[in-house]
Amino acid sequence: MIDRLIERIDACGAPVVVGLDPVCSMVPERLITEAVETHGRGLAAAAHMLAAFSREIIDAVSDLTPAVKPQIAMYERFGPEGLAAYAETAAYARSKGLLVIGDVKRGDISSTAEAYAAHIGGAEFAGELFDPWHEDAVTLNPYLGVDGIRPFLDVCEKAGKGIFVLVKTSNPSGAELQDLVLERGGPVYEHVAGLVSRWGEPCMGARGYSRVGAVVGATFAEQGRRLRKLMPHTFFLVPGYGAQGASGRDLRGFFDADGRGCVVNSSRGITAAWQKGGRFGGNDVGAAAREALEAMRKDLKEALA
Amino acid sequence: MIDRLIERIDACGAPVVVGLDPVCSMVPERLITEAVETHGRGLAAAAHMLAAFSREIIDAVSDLTPAVKPQIAMYERFGPEGLAAYAETAAYARSKGLLVIGDVKRGDISSTAEAYAAHIGGAEFAGELFDPWHEDAVTLNPYLGVDGIRPFLDVCEKAGKGIFVLVKTSNPSGAELQDLVLERGGPVYEHVAGLVSRWGEPCMGARGYSRVGAVVGATFAEQGRRLRKLMPHTFFLVPGYGAQGASGRDLRGFFDADGRGCVVNSSRGITAAWQKGGRFGGNDVGAAAREALEAMRKDLKEALA
Repeated sequence: MIDRLIERIDACGAPVVVGLDPVCSMVPERLITEAVETHGRGLAAAAHMLAAFSREIIDAVSDLTPAVKPQIAMYERFGPEGLAAYAETAAYARSKGLLVIGDVKRGDISSTAEAYAAHIGGAEFAGELFDPWHEDAVTLNPYLGVDGIRPFLDVCEKAGKGIFVLVKTSNPSGAELQDLVLERGGPVYEHVAGLVSRWGEPCMGARGYSRVGAVVGATFAEQGRRLRKLMPHTFFLVPGYGAQGASGRDLRGFFDADGRGCVVNSSRGITAAWQKGGRFGGNDVGAAAREALEAMRKDLKEALA
Repeated sequence: MIDRLIERIDACGAPVVVGLDPVCSMVPERLITEAVETHGRGLAAAAHMLAAFSREIIDAVSDLTPAVKPQIAMYERFGPEGLAAYAETAAYARSKGLLVIGDVKRGDISSTAEAYAAHIGGAEFAGELFDPWHEDAVTLNPYLGVDGIRPFLDVCEKAGKGIFVLVKTSNPSGAELQDLVLERGGPVYEHVAGLVSRWGEPCMGARGYSRVGAVVGATFAEQGRRLRKLMPHTFFLVPGYGAQGASGRDLRGFFDADGRGCVVNSSRGITAAWQKGGRFGGNDVGAAAREALEAMRKDLKEALA
């Protein structure tokens, strides 16, 4: 997965990921009305709306980004029907040639972690293998240690899939736990960085990076720079660009000397761009998303030049 | 939720929770055959099997336990259809008078955490409120700090629901992160205990315990005892009994002086009891589950006597 991601970043010309985090307040009224007219005022309509909105974004950006990152919570909010829209969205993105990074942040132990690993490894039933989630990689939470990660490592090794483990998140209160200073020196997140780096050793791709990546928030430039040095073979998935405040020049240190090793996510900055009005304002979700993504690509290219 | 849990523990006479963690290898062949005959070899059959197995367990134990804890990963493995079986299982348990603790271990930030909070708070769409998951409480992961917890706290305060935040998990490798010693003294999990305790202050129930509880693994008796003292108003959800090795006498210190403040979960020890053969061996899933639960109740009562 990580080699394909690097190849596609090169091919499409920018280290970006478009996050799909649809909430009702950023979906145009026309899509809600259409969903309710088709399915009535129920969860099936909510699911229809999520899938339709996600499709419009994907159609608009598929030639400008190597991957999308659907946020499963936004679909899970509406129950199993919402999650059917998540799976449909992931399958649709793949059909357009995009890699799918499922932002699921799962984490549990032993047989439970094995069950979650179906996200990327598929599930067997009655002698057949199913791929219900259509993801190429997922995000994971490290709080339970390697027990929660191991079944995913197996899939990364055998099936070439990828994971991104939370190391330093982009939100302010992440510091409550991640920044605690250890007796042996350094904060918790640097220790986690060491674990993630070690976990990834058996899963090296052909381009110098492991299929076990790390989530490192764009909002902490100094920490990102340091983590880049501590984890030279760990690819970073970087949330927090745009809506959360970071810009391209904050991110130079997250990349290696060749301008690689990092993919930057923007969600609302792209998917809710149509609400800012301007040239593509009104209801043209796709055109506004495309324009916002072009601006982000330019910003990152300038920062990396 | 926490007051109702305490009342039901008193009413049914034991501080137990039955964990529903169905995997194919512990489901009797007859249920798999029936599912495949009804739905063919697909995910709909897997979902049918999960729901049928869960129903047999619930029918067998509903008068002996105050609550069940379905493990969402085991259903999520089979995609949106599996998750429909999860929601159906939760609704069925509630219809039998049981509280439902969804073992979901979610954790994310801001608007994403809000979306996950639909698990206990429901989701609004087109002016109506839906409750797609049918849970009374859920487990959560603290790695992202209070940002990931806050939307759930709101639901706990306003709707009387509950959460259990991971503090010290029952698995060996949990120590890789949770047991790291801090410069200021004490391990990471004790610091997390302090956070959880503080987060729970605005959500106190009428019986001395907060609706913000903690997950504390049964496999670490000494740590459990110490956490009980550090968190006198935090209710413990305790996994790791039975199949993971802990027994009643290891758990005395997890309870308060009145034998309260704690509910002990057993999953495979009960749901897979039918595979151990013996008096209720063969295919009688329910009878074996009931017998195993009676034995667990007795063990805990003796330990607390």
